[in-house]
Amino acid sequence: MPICQPGDIVMLVARDRKQSKFIFKLEETRKLHTHVGAIAHDDMIGQKLGAQVNSHTGHPFDLLAPSIDDLIRDIKRNSQIIFPKDIGFILMKMAITPGKTVLECGTGSGGLTSVLALMVGPHGKVHTYDQRDDMQSLAKKNIERIGLQDRVTFTLRDIAEGFEQTDADAVFLDVPRPWEYTAQAHRALAGGGFFGCLVPTTNQVSNLITALERDHFSFIEVCEVLVRYYKPVAERLRPTDRMVAHTGFLIFARAISGLTAEPEPAEEAGDAPVL
Amino acid sequence: MPICQPGDIVMLVARDRKQSKFIFKLEETRKLHTHVGAIAHDDMIGQKLGAQVNSHTGHPFDLLAPSIDDLIRDIKRNSQIIFPKDIGFILMKMAITPGKTVLECGTGSGGLTSVLALMVGPHGKVHTYDQRDDMQSLAKKNIERIGLQDRVTFTLRDIAEGFEQTDADAVFLDVPRPWEYTAQAHRALAGGGFFGCLVPTTNQVSNLITALERDHFSFIEVCEVLVRYYKPVAERLRPTDRMVAHTGFLIFARAISGLTAEPEPAEEAGDAPVL
Amino acid sequence: MPICQPGDIVMLVARDRKQSKFIFKLEETRKLHTHVGAIAHDDMIGQKLGAQVNSHTGHPFDLLAPSIDDLIRDIKRNSQIIFPKDIGFILMKMAITPGKTVLECGTGSGGLTSVLALMVGPHGKVHTYDQRDDMQSLAKKNIERIGLQDRVTFTLRDIAEGFEQTDADAVFLDVPRPWEYTAQAHRALAGGGFFGCLVPTTNQVSNLITALERDHFSFIEVCEVLVRYYKPVAERLRPTDRMVAHTGFLIFARAISGLTAEPEPAEEAGDAPVL
Amino acid sequence: MPICQPGDIVMLVARDRKQSKFIFKLEETRKLHTHVGAIAHDDMIGQKLGAQVNSHTGHPFDLLAPSIDDLIRDIKRNSQIIFPKDIGFILMKMAITPGKTVLECGTGSGGLTSVLALMVGPHGKVHTYDQRDDMQSLAKKNIERIGLQDRVTFTLRDIAEGFEQTDADAVFLDVPRPWEYTAQAHRALAGGGFFGCLVPTTNQVSNLITALERDHFSFIEVCEVLVRYYKPVAERLRPTDRMVAHTGFLIFARAISGLTAEPEPAEEAGDAPVL
Repeated sequence: MPICQPGDIVMLVARDRKQSKFIFKLEETRKLHTHVGAIAHDDMIGQKLGAQVNSHTGHPFDLLAPSIDDLIRDIKRNSQIIFPKDIGFILMKMAITPGKTVLECGTGSGGLTSVLALMVGPHGKVHTYDQRDDMQSLAKKNIERIGLQDRVTFTLRDIAEGFEQTDADAVFLDVPRPWEYTAQAHRALAGGGFFGCLVPTTNQVSNLITALERDHFSFIEVCEVLVRYYKPVAERLRPTDRMVAHTGFLIFARAISGLTAEPEPAEEAGDAPVL
Repeated sequence: MPICQPGDIVMLVARDRKQSKFIFKLEETRKLHTHVGAIAHDDMIGQKLGAQVNSHTGHPFDLLAPSIDDLIRDIKRNSQIIFPKDIGFILMKMAITPGKTVLECGTGSGGLTSVLALMVGPHGKVHTYDQRDDMQSLAKKNIERIGLQDRVTFTLRDIAEGFEQTDADAVFLDVPRPWEYTAQAHRALAGGGFFGCLVPTTNQVSNLITALERDHFSFIEVCEVLVRYYKPVAERLRPTDRMVAHTGFLIFARAISGLTAEPEPAEEAGDAPVL
Repeated sequence: MPICQPGDIVMLVARDRKQSKFIFKLEETRKLHTHVGAIAHDDMIGQKLGAQVNSHTGHPFDLLAPSIDDLIRDIKRNSQIIFPKDIGFILMKMAITPGKTVLECGTGSGGLTSVLALMVGPHGKVHTYDQRDDMQSLAKKNIERIGLQDRVTFTLRDIAEGFEQTDADAVFLDVPRPWEYTAQAHRALAGGGFFGCLVPTTNQVSNLITALERDHFSFIEVCEVLVRYYKPVAERLRPTDRMVAHTGFLIFARAISGLTAEPEPAEEAGDAPVL
Repeated sequence: MPICQPGDIVMLVARDRKQSKFIFKLEETRKLHTHVGAIAHDDMIGQKLGAQVNSHTGHPFDLLAPSIDDLIRDIKRNSQIIFPKDIGFILMKMAITPGKTVLECGTGSGGLTSVLALMVGPHGKVHTYDQRDDMQSLAKKNIERIGLQDRVTFTLRDIAEGFEQTDADAVFLDVPRPWEYTAQAHRALAGGGFFGCLVPTTNQVSNLITALERDHFSFIEVCEVLVRYYKPVAERLRPTDRMVAHTGFLIFARAISGLTAEPEPAEEAGDAPVL
């Protein structure tokens, strides 16, 4: 029975036109302050998800679990973050599952870090690197807010010096010049480990492919993920007028030599019932 | 240290042009038979990931962990399956994380079931329904092969009669007429629980929106996920000639009344640094 | 030698950061008034395209021919117009070439009308219908401004009563309920003539397909045209962040019975070097 | 009244499942030979478009005008051709209208040449260049077949030496290294004339942007045109499973110095009702 407990991350949605969302960790004796009044956490602890709670001014809210999409969207940020559409595909391609050890550089605002920490579960580990203290301070707060600090180590370092870990299951780079760190990523990975990267320009993609081939990576794949939303009206169904056209190119590879890049990605292959 | 153990799911990739992949669970005393010779599981148990192993004919293979993309692609199937590009986004929108309880109908070949079982971890649960025995038999084999049978229950039933569970965190429908089961999905969900569905045609999307509005769902979103691959050649970077243009429309909603559909999905909203 | 003559449609672009564009027909003794001063048409007549001209305040402008894209963008409008990306494809699919007779309903602001009139040349004809006088008045002004009024007839009529013409080469419908006028379109077309339509919603597409099949049209095709722009920076090439995701669905057909819809559009057909 | 005349380009479509198409110029006393029998051109001359005609074996055909899409698809080719989706947009961006003078290099199989010749009409001119005699021979045949040879000049030349013409309205390059010919294109263009190019890789786009900026072009735009087809079934409307994902990047510019590239292409610009 989904009864709200101290430590749970919950989302309050205001029952009004604007549907303001508030995402936070439940803690005894604390209060949430909103534009339409305050609500004591103790009034939510013990409630079932889906319950309606009221602020001290009587404004109604729905008590919900946030989606990962909600969580990422809500993150406090001082940098460009990675979109849920891209994160979901990264999980699939890099096998981010409970129990895994994942390295990440840079930490940025901690959006991807948060999802990695969620997905590796209590027995997994995320080691995240950044050169900027202000970035990691914010990311730490974001991770603490969702209560996952025990799964994450934060290191301030230029990874040109290398990662501290070896035998990692996966390494993800979100840095402007990833081609300078592919050798370091290879050394940090277990045999055949998963490499992933996001860069915004085609020039960066070309540079990174060259570095991955040089530094003994195989199965290089380059792709983009696009999400197209529709206006959800049954009798006038149509795509929205505008969409996000680009966040970045995703590059994936495996830390193993000598296996040439696949000539055709699987989703391209003829008539076979691939996916 | 990633040493291969009995029970691990591993992938062997042949070191040749075709790069045939073999995905299986390591079991003592068993043998893998390939087109280029046999390999004893015992010769892989105790090896590090990334090791090279040889068949009895001397053909070399690389021993790797499969990605989720590899796993899904490899699944034995007798039905259309859900693509990794869609599964990744489903995880983000429906908050499929370690410890969750997820319902699914229909089971199909068990591709989505497999990823749900992976992601909910050892403390989560997947309950999957189908009306066809032959489907569930195949799906069971697919789940057993990756060793996740303890996290999954299989039920043969027309869900017009309802799900057995209540208070589920999430319900996913992959059936031809999902609009006939939205009330049942609502009853099975915890308050505010996550609803998801994939359908191939616009007519089905319209019917489902009508049913979701009638059956007290809110925050309805409709979208498509498109992945565009590039030929990974540094000095001649270009998209592949053809791509998968359509697998299905994804529909998401929350089991709670009275919150109207968002006028604009988050990725549409103006200039704010959303994701 | 492209010397500007009275009657030519030209474009002045301000040589400054905002690059304001002014599109108009050159007429002796007239003056163009801009935010940075006035310019006499007589100062442009006799100049070569590409010349620099100055306003009376000394502000420099470049004298250019507008593209069709420029022309359409500049049109005064009181309704949604059809995008150049869609118009270009309409020309290809409906064989709009010099000498053709084309019917159109509704006239709207006259954007498509203008391009049709340009493309059918001095020996072709465009007959455009609308029910709203205010619409056609504006469209007339837009057509007169580019000097093509001799090629266009304007008729105020509900085309439920039918078109005045028969044996037209092509009929394009840009109306909310095109399925009510497919029989009228068929009667107006020469044997095998080209039918085209743009509608924004999937529900409208479904209704129109049903009507076209009922009213003896063949070779029905449904498609969308998407244009994705890149930031034109050599060393940081990347798609723009956002794009137009939807203007409308294009539906094409031929006025002839009994030829079933093609099972696969040409661009889908296997490996053959189609286009 | 659209009565078929000698010299008309017509299309015969077989009334059977395969719907084979035959596109040719009507000439007195000639015969068309098909897999289901022969048909004398004289039996078609004098018929109305849309008429049914029979081969000598009695197989029925429909007599139609081809669309430009049909024409291009039918062209005999020994090289990659430019798709109708791209050609349509090129017409819009480069103002290819009746009466214009257009230069093209290379000729290739003459597909784009054909559409340019159609669109400039009897008072316009297309000058096309190629270095390969075999290419131009085939292109000449393709142009003669549709009867437009009077509007086209063919020149065998390496355009590194420059074009013969000056004051052209538009220059289109379809060559592997277009950045080597931008100065030549500029010299051939009238002031402010339209430049266009299609290249398949991002590396080529970057090289071309650099050359255009160096050689005094302004208003550089880079884009892709994507067409997504739907299965035209009213009650099960859905996109086709696969689509053409890439033919090439289109680059447009104007032959005039000092006007910087637009910061945002028009279709990106905020809320204004642009197109």
